[in-house]
Amino acid sequence: MTPGDAGAPIADLRVGVLGGGQLGRMLAEAGRPLGVAFRFWDPGEAEPIAGFGEHICAAWDDDAAFERFVDGLDVVTYEFENVPVELARRIAEVVPVHPDPAALDVAQDRLSEKSRFESLGIATNAFLPVDGPGALASAIEAVGYPAVLKTRRLGYDGKGQEVLRRPDDTQGAFERLGSVPCILEAFVPFDRELSLVAVRTADGRFAPYPLVENTHVEGILVRTEAPAEGVSAAIRDQAETAVRALAEALDYVGTIAVEFFEVAGGSADDRRLLANEVAPRVHNSGHWTQDGAVTSQFENHVRAVCGLPLGPTGIAWPTVMVNLIGRRGDAEALLACDGARLHDYGKSERPGRKVGHVNVLGSTGQAARDRAEALRAVYAGPELR
Amino acid sequence: MTPGDAGAPIADLRVGVLGGGQLGRMLAEAGRPLGVAFRFWDPGEAEPIAGFGEHICAAWDDDAAFERFVDGLDVVTYEFENVPVELARRIAEVVPVHPDPAALDVAQDRLSEKSRFESLGIATNAFLPVDGPGALASAIEAVGYPAVLKTRRLGYDGKGQEVLRRPDDTQGAFERLGSVPCILEAFVPFDRELSLVAVRTADGRFAPYPLVENTHVEGILVRTEAPAEGVSAAIRDQAETAVRALAEALDYVGTIAVEFFEVAGGSADDRRLLANEVAPRVHNSGHWTQDGAVTSQFENHVRAVCGLPLGPTGIAWPTVMVNLIGRRGDAEALLACDGARLHDYGKSERPGRKVGHVNVLGSTGQAARDRAEALRAVYAGPELR
Repeated sequence: MTPGDAGAPIADLRVGVLGGGQLGRMLAEAGRPLGVAFRFWDPGEAEPIAGFGEHICAAWDDDAAFERFVDGLDVVTYEFENVPVELARRIAEVVPVHPDPAALDVAQDRLSEKSRFESLGIATNAFLPVDGPGALASAIEAVGYPAVLKTRRLGYDGKGQEVLRRPDDTQGAFERLGSVPCILEAFVPFDRELSLVAVRTADGRFAPYPLVENTHVEGILVRTEAPAEGVSAAIRDQAETAVRALAEALDYVGTIAVEFFEVAGGSADDRRLLANEVAPRVHNSGHWTQDGAVTSQFENHVRAVCGLPLGPTGIAWPTVMVNLIGRRGDAEALLACDGARLHDYGKSERPGRKVGHVNVLGSTGQAARDRAEALRAVYAGPELR
Repeated sequence: MTPGDAGAPIADLRVGVLGGGQLGRMLAEAGRPLGVAFRFWDPGEAEPIAGFGEHICAAWDDDAAFERFVDGLDVVTYEFENVPVELARRIAEVVPVHPDPAALDVAQDRLSEKSRFESLGIATNAFLPVDGPGALASAIEAVGYPAVLKTRRLGYDGKGQEVLRRPDDTQGAFERLGSVPCILEAFVPFDRELSLVAVRTADGRFAPYPLVENTHVEGILVRTEAPAEGVSAAIRDQAETAVRALAEALDYVGTIAVEFFEVAGGSADDRRLLANEVAPRVHNSGHWTQDGAVTSQFENHVRAVCGLPLGPTGIAWPTVMVNLIGRRGDAEALLACDGARLHDYGKSERPGRKVGHVNVLGSTGQAARDRAEALRAVYAGPELR
């Protein structure tokens, strides 16, 4: 980067980021105080990273953009996983890419993802590939109702899936999802969703954050509670073992997140986790770490991909993270709430779009929950439509 | 700001900052997550704010720059106090300026500053104006040795002053300081320097941070310990009362800092404070608040000048702030230190120049001090020359 660029000109390290959304913005917020400069490649408007580094606005297959992007970079990472894997591999021939593009490959295809869970002995729900209406019918026979049909690729925030409760739902479901390769999964009657965010270094150091509890509305994360209450040592071990195994198998470098369903077993305290999906990047359920952990998931991702030592992943304050969805709300009212820490993404408002979040801190989990409840008086909740 | 500018295009609030140093950078770091965009006016290179907002690089008397700077701003503030007061007043005719330019006036002239302390009943050391060698001689007669001769304007980091211990020192001292208006102050044999950072809102809310202890080397702050150990309730009250009185007298809006000498009184626990100087802005001795307080001095300054409610000023972690002076050090080694939080300013290295700081956190004051001591193994201290 030349001194005239938007990035700090004399930074010791130059990180390229594929994608220019809020996760990229928050990576830069965390990395710039460490002396790291950022360059983003995003074919779109990339509002959130405006002013956080150079924005290369070009299609993924633009060769000139490729050259401009990689020029002078020390390392490349992603802030969203639907980057072409081939592009990531091509970049890796000239600049180190962390995490390895193989992690994108796994995360982009739900069949690869679930198969990888299975091959690593990570418990997950039953699944079968579905390549046509006939395959759907036989998969339903094997898995039974209720089940969920999902596109193998490009699903997010509850999009690209259909819940099948009876034969009527199944009729035409494959076509409604666009007649693309799909996966049928057994519907999990879960008690709650937990997720584990962790970070791994190139020399194999693995550091998990505490397990957190997530709440979704219409497939969109609306709230994360950190730490999750009532997590047994067995559940914690199961989650950490699973994420560590996955990270090691992928020789993963950076922040990784895995969502789990916590389901009841035979007795009241016999609970177990089923892995649902992996994100090969910083994750919305880790946003609480900006204010509630000693070192944020963003800073630790930057540290890991840059080969810098990790910061502690311990909890500083029990935190409830509340997403601002569809509208940013009234900053003045939000900031007047006890324990509220605001993170605006600089995005235009649009129904269903994540435009910011608030981390609500408390001295205890109950205090944080009470304060998050009080916040509802000024921000009632997501406007999804 | 147009969407093509470096500032986030859709921010609700647009803040203009006079000055483009590290304090401006950290104001932007704190303010942008609140949805605030920044524009800086600095006649110099302004390395630290590169990529943190639009930089208007022009002399202070450039009329076209004036128009470009104020266009569309909601409020203007400063990140250093040696801005021409007349410029601040001219800006205040078209955009609200916080704190009021009157605060600059007081802080730019040591005689006004000390006189203001005196008129508000804030204890300070003896002082007399010195406008020539003759006035110096009679001032020395009144104040006695040792004393400190300081230029009334533009002194910082120990520059623009001479310690006078005997008549030999006095000979030619006025001329060595450039034959400019000076002030002679009684030398204070202080036990330690404490400072109080506080923030005040337009509607008169006043919120002090805890008193901190500062250590200087050759006039440059090298270390701040927060909170200061062994502060009596009487000392705390004296500091808070003084800063509140000053802030109210100036109808101050934003973060303000006052440095005090703590001196021994008649008996061991009879200690008192003498106000030394005021900074009408965020202050180096408040940098610990980025990691050690619930809300940083930077965020609270932004909140105050934008008319947003303040965040809590309570302590989260005992913290020792260590300035990186002259050289940035090895980020990898610094980040490997327990409890270390790095803040790089994006500045070129130069002897005596503040190029970053590290906030070292601990669960207790002693733990933070021990960790700061351990940090010396990788960053031995300031290189002032």
